[in-house]
Amino acid sequence: MKVAILGATGAVGRQMIECLEERNIKIDELILLASEKSAGKKMKFKNEEIVVREAKEDSFKGLDVVLGATENSYAKHFAPHIVSSNAVFIDNSSAFRQDDEVPLVIPEINKEDIKNNKGIIANPNCSTIITLMAVAPINKLSKVDFIIASTYQAVSGAGIGGMSELKNQIEELSKDENAKVIPNVFKYPIAHNLIPKIGDACDNLYTKEEMKMQNEGRKIMHLPELKVSCTCVRVPILRSHSISAVVVTKDKLNIDDIKSEMLKFKGVSLVDDLNKDLYPMPINTCNKDIVEVGRIRKDLIFENGIDLFCSGDQIRKGAATNAVEILENL
Amino acid sequence: MKVAILGATGAVGRQMIECLEERNIKIDELILLASEKSAGKKMKFKNEEIVVREAKEDSFKGLDVVLGATENSYAKHFAPHIVSSNAVFIDNSSAFRQDDEVPLVIPEINKEDIKNNKGIIANPNCSTIITLMAVAPINKLSKVDFIIASTYQAVSGAGIGGMSELKNQIEELSKDENAKVIPNVFKYPIAHNLIPKIGDACDNLYTKEEMKMQNEGRKIMHLPELKVSCTCVRVPILRSHSISAVVVTKDKLNIDDIKSEMLKFKGVSLVDDLNKDLYPMPINTCNKDIVEVGRIRKDLIFENGIDLFCSGDQIRKGAATNAVEILENL
Repeated sequence: MKVAILGATGAVGRQMIECLEERNIKIDELILLASEKSAGKKMKFKNEEIVVREAKEDSFKGLDVVLGATENSYAKHFAPHIVSSNAVFIDNSSAFRQDDEVPLVIPEINKEDIKNNKGIIANPNCSTIITLMAVAPINKLSKVDFIIASTYQAVSGAGIGGMSELKNQIEELSKDENAKVIPNVFKYPIAHNLIPKIGDACDNLYTKEEMKMQNEGRKIMHLPELKVSCTCVRVPILRSHSISAVVVTKDKLNIDDIKSEMLKFKGVSLVDDLNKDLYPMPINTCNKDIVEVGRIRKDLIFENGIDLFCSGDQIRKGAATNAVEILENL
Repeated sequence: MKVAILGATGAVGRQMIECLEERNIKIDELILLASEKSAGKKMKFKNEEIVVREAKEDSFKGLDVVLGATENSYAKHFAPHIVSSNAVFIDNSSAFRQDDEVPLVIPEINKEDIKNNKGIIANPNCSTIITLMAVAPINKLSKVDFIIASTYQAVSGAGIGGMSELKNQIEELSKDENAKVIPNVFKYPIAHNLIPKIGDACDNLYTKEEMKMQNEGRKIMHLPELKVSCTCVRVPILRSHSISAVVVTKDKLNIDDIKSEMLKFKGVSLVDDLNKDLYPMPINTCNKDIVEVGRIRKDLIFENGIDLFCSGDQIRKGAATNAVEILENL
């Protein structure tokens, strides 16, 4: 199998290389593609050093799979060339997620959709993946009606630049707590701050990021009527996203049944004993493939409502790991 | 007027001294009381240096008002002595908040309850104050049925110790990102982390902190049927709490009406223009008395639902400022 990573030098691209290696995926040749300015860089895969090449329209000939870790515009530009080269494009951008011809897949939830692909498979939004990993076991017991979610999103969602911006600001402020830090990747300083806007504004005053959980959730879980009201907030954390959610189902569920379903669900780790101080936390999920779920309790408002808190690594299960799992399921 | 601060050397006590000075409250004598180990310390009030005295049962004779900034056990211990000295006890602990004889007051919302006091007036929980400041203007237009809230709570909620723990951990980790930080005030490291448990566990698997928003909200807003499902999360931020909330009212409301009500509401600052990147943020509310409210939008699930995000300083409006405002209204 010949595989390329398009956007290999970014946070998600680098993680894809690591995931391919960790999971021991049989690859005859790995090709690393990036923009002109990254071409020539050397990156390690297994015991090999691979030279990054500039991505061009004719870069995809003879490839079987292209893992995409670029922005929408590059994904849109290269997709037709990938497809016409007969490679499958597993794309982490949001360019094709709502395309009816493109399956949107979290393998633990809807891997059967992969077979409907016509050359492109979309990887969902990071917060959506982490939330749905916690919601899917509940949905197995009773269809989910609606979800109210508030996110606690790490800076890695804005790439390597977001991560170094937080680190630099923290360093500056720990030397001089009145230092005037200048934001660049984010609109405002993120150290010691929260930014309750991720993505552009929509007409309904939600952000595009906030609407993804409903739009992508409907498609992934095959729940066309699903409603999600979501508030996305950037927090000063490096790479794990967390979500506080109320999940309301058609039928009334039992907490113990939900917990046993969580225990059976691949990719989920149930961390839930409030009295023993066991609950999901970013420090525990950071750089791991698992999504932790906990704080499971009966909601105080909705008869059929369940509250929970979940946490997962944004770069891994929120992006690279999920894409590589799609590849494994091809 | 003779005023004492009980617990003057803690984060809230110190802030009370500052608030009394800033607001130019006419005080003939300010007495600073604390535990034995803090007695003898000198603290500044206006141009005076005041020596902290050890709080004793007979410390309250001749006083008019005692502002309490201690833990529950001290509040409970000293309350009868304060009341029998004919001073009014404005208590920031949670010891008396649910006592039927004790008004629980946010002056902008229910200052008329102050007159029912029998010597004790309770200051509400910090997250509750900041959330209700955002919810009260909506409640003026139509009674609130229920609230779904997720909090982003600063470390100042755990006092001066919580603040120095975050600062120290951040410093350690910015020198060596693999440093093993040892938590003390918090159960786990808080730098680069979230802790989704504040307060002890209740039988219903909510925490005591989470139940306060419903229990205190009912009493303050005179809404005995109010339901609140809340998830409280500690975030690595120094002193401003933020809350993401869905507020559902009896009647359907108009966003413009809500915004004009917010603009009229004392203590609230409407910061709400998503396209211009204006929304509430901890860096803007830190060390200020105002509660910022924004991200106001029609909820996607509930016909009568409004989503919002609010932020306010935990030590000020969440504690000291509110107590001093109660004093002003006495």
